[in-house]
Amino acid sequence: MSASVSPLAPTDVPDMPAIAGVKLATAAAGIRYKGRTDVLLAVMDKGTAVAGVFTKSKCPSAPVEWCRAKLGRGARALVVNSGNANAFTGKTGRQATALTASIAAKAVGCSANEVFLASTGVIGEPLDATKFDGVLATLAETAAPDEWMAAATAIMTTDTFPKVATATVKLGKTKVTINGMAKGAGMIAPDMATMLSFVFTDAPLSSAVLQSLLKSGVEDTFNAITIDSDTSTSDTLLAFATGAAADDGAPKISRASDPRLKAFAKAFQDVLANLAEQVARDGEGARKLVEVIVEGATTKNSARKIAMSIANSPLVKTAIAGEDANWGRVVMAVGKAGEPANRDKLSISFNGIRVAKSGARDPSYNEAEVSEVMKNPKIQIKVALGLGKGRDRVLTCDLTKEYVAINGDYRS
Amino acid sequence: MSASVSPLAPTDVPDMPAIAGVKLATAAAGIRYKGRTDVLLAVMDKGTAVAGVFTKSKCPSAPVEWCRAKLGRGARALVVNSGNANAFTGKTGRQATALTASIAAKAVGCSANEVFLASTGVIGEPLDATKFDGVLATLAETAAPDEWMAAATAIMTTDTFPKVATATVKLGKTKVTINGMAKGAGMIAPDMATMLSFVFTDAPLSSAVLQSLLKSGVEDTFNAITIDSDTSTSDTLLAFATGAAADDGAPKISRASDPRLKAFAKAFQDVLANLAEQVARDGEGARKLVEVIVEGATTKNSARKIAMSIANSPLVKTAIAGEDANWGRVVMAVGKAGEPANRDKLSISFNGIRVAKSGARDPSYNEAEVSEVMKNPKIQIKVALGLGKGRDRVLTCDLTKEYVAINGDYRS
Repeated sequence: MSASVSPLAPTDVPDMPAIAGVKLATAAAGIRYKGRTDVLLAVMDKGTAVAGVFTKSKCPSAPVEWCRAKLGRGARALVVNSGNANAFTGKTGRQATALTASIAAKAVGCSANEVFLASTGVIGEPLDATKFDGVLATLAETAAPDEWMAAATAIMTTDTFPKVATATVKLGKTKVTINGMAKGAGMIAPDMATMLSFVFTDAPLSSAVLQSLLKSGVEDTFNAITIDSDTSTSDTLLAFATGAAADDGAPKISRASDPRLKAFAKAFQDVLANLAEQVARDGEGARKLVEVIVEGATTKNSARKIAMSIANSPLVKTAIAGEDANWGRVVMAVGKAGEPANRDKLSISFNGIRVAKSGARDPSYNEAEVSEVMKNPKIQIKVALGLGKGRDRVLTCDLTKEYVAINGDYRS
Repeated sequence: MSASVSPLAPTDVPDMPAIAGVKLATAAAGIRYKGRTDVLLAVMDKGTAVAGVFTKSKCPSAPVEWCRAKLGRGARALVVNSGNANAFTGKTGRQATALTASIAAKAVGCSANEVFLASTGVIGEPLDATKFDGVLATLAETAAPDEWMAAATAIMTTDTFPKVATATVKLGKTKVTINGMAKGAGMIAPDMATMLSFVFTDAPLSSAVLQSLLKSGVEDTFNAITIDSDTSTSDTLLAFATGAAADDGAPKISRASDPRLKAFAKAFQDVLANLAEQVARDGEGARKLVEVIVEGATTKNSARKIAMSIANSPLVKTAIAGEDANWGRVVMAVGKAGEPANRDKLSISFNGIRVAKSGARDPSYNEAEVSEVMKNPKIQIKVALGLGKGRDRVLTCDLTKEYVAINGDYRS
């Protein structure tokens, strides 16, 4: 695992406020790692609504299957462990989720059906859930409202920094809070961008409203990032709404079309976008944050496919790592996407400097000027197709030797 | 560019026989490289049939467009240059192909429509075709039947060894010969597996027969390899049949269904398979040749998609580089392929040792034993899905720090 923090880590980490109705605690259960926390328990008040979106892998992890089956009811607890993904663990995996939920339910004083689970780490190794015995009971007793950074740290695997985001917004006339956390940092590709993320709010939203917010919110955030084109078996984004702000007068929202939801929906999406960008900023071995913008495509969907083709191209990503504005490789990635594109209408720019237009090198293109901007830690690749009004944006990072080092020496 | 030869290079390089009706010559035209040959001229006798398959990129190179337009007639000359792909070069690119063909036609004494072109190297830089002036005339004069290794060397870019293959087979009662060459070594993914390859035979085949042999021949050879999932703008596979063996009594074949073609078709496919494997063996930075076999899929096409998902996964490829039998990542890649798969029926083996069965770790799996076989330079990953009879096989290589080094410092 990489010891040094990504140079792309945000410099302004927010103070995370409490969310009424949510308490957190972390511990070192010894799942896999030594000398660090690896289990998070979040305890929610009665009446907490829950929603979730998950990996589209055909081989999902046991916790993903567990959560899918439990959606639609309320949530009282969330247990997250790092170090072991409890994926491809067969019957043992299902037993481990049931046992974990049972231990958590007893510790919190709720039904196992109100316990949500997420696991991240190595695939294919049995998860010894008996390690949670005792640990979760202690965590339930010590859980506190202000443990957000500790929580975000406990769920890390190869992440080099904890990822949190917060927003406050008015719902009706009442101030409500949204807190989120996420972990990356490899095996990141839609859909659903692979990682774990948990968002909490005190807003009184129904599960259906929360699910609707999640579904529309991920489209241009977590589903618009990719690290390495690999889709995890464990991708999980859960949102919890305790409804505690109703005590302060916040209106209960039970329809996604409720106009009072508008500002909240925007703030919610901003939190998702913030976390998703942090995941891209902490891609394994990342030294550059890469924003790919495709415009002039026939449709937004077509623009997304082309942007993803560029963002997933090893040759584009290694060129960025080498600070080389190799727009020829961008052309290659446009060409292989299989979407409508006319070579002779294509324009490409790096960080605002156009290097190619009308299917050939831009005559005014100055290599030295471009070389200079390629040193920036953030690189924007903009491709104008000149065909229509379809536009999209995805985030990724460069592909460095460190990525190979991290992933060639992860399990052993 | 990597200086040392891939450890996966074949140890037994064949002596390449002459092909009646084909002469070759190479030169250093100074396209881009210093101190090495970078242009190949092949001169074919009158009456030579030609067939070709090309990249499916929506942004193909100028030579690809040239060749596509010239198919269906005969061929008298092939000009290949390395160092510059003449791709995304706009009108200048089209002018460069026309000029090159015109210079070659004059040198050889044929029509420009009988000249085939291929370029490989950097994308987006104008190709100065005037550099061929004089050079091609000299090459046409000095062309000789035995320059196969020199030819295969002149077309290399980041390849670490020249790739040739040969076969002799009876057509009717006459011995005919098939010679092929190819270059890789990055931006290799179907369809059409990205590279340049040229195959020559003295068999008297019509263009239609040759095209049919190519089309069916590439499916499980060049279209079944991937280095990095990136599809070149320049992929070109051309086949030439001089027909000279007709003088020795070989029958003229004008229908692909002709039963006399059977042994030839097999030998032809073997040459393609041999060259394709050499391309995988010389993938940029490759230290392991990886054979992915998927069986028990619902269809062959489904097996191909799953095999490609595994072969293109950076996490699987880095694990192989790290000599880690990380079957969890293989599960991930199966899951992300989007094809029918039942986690609980999946079995996975590395070099014959089964590590997972029925959706979980194989109880008899011995880590030390598997670690030992992972040191082999050739790794076979076999996935049994247990659903149907669909089977497929693809070749790839591992993903190493050297790949990143080669591609992070290619253009500059």
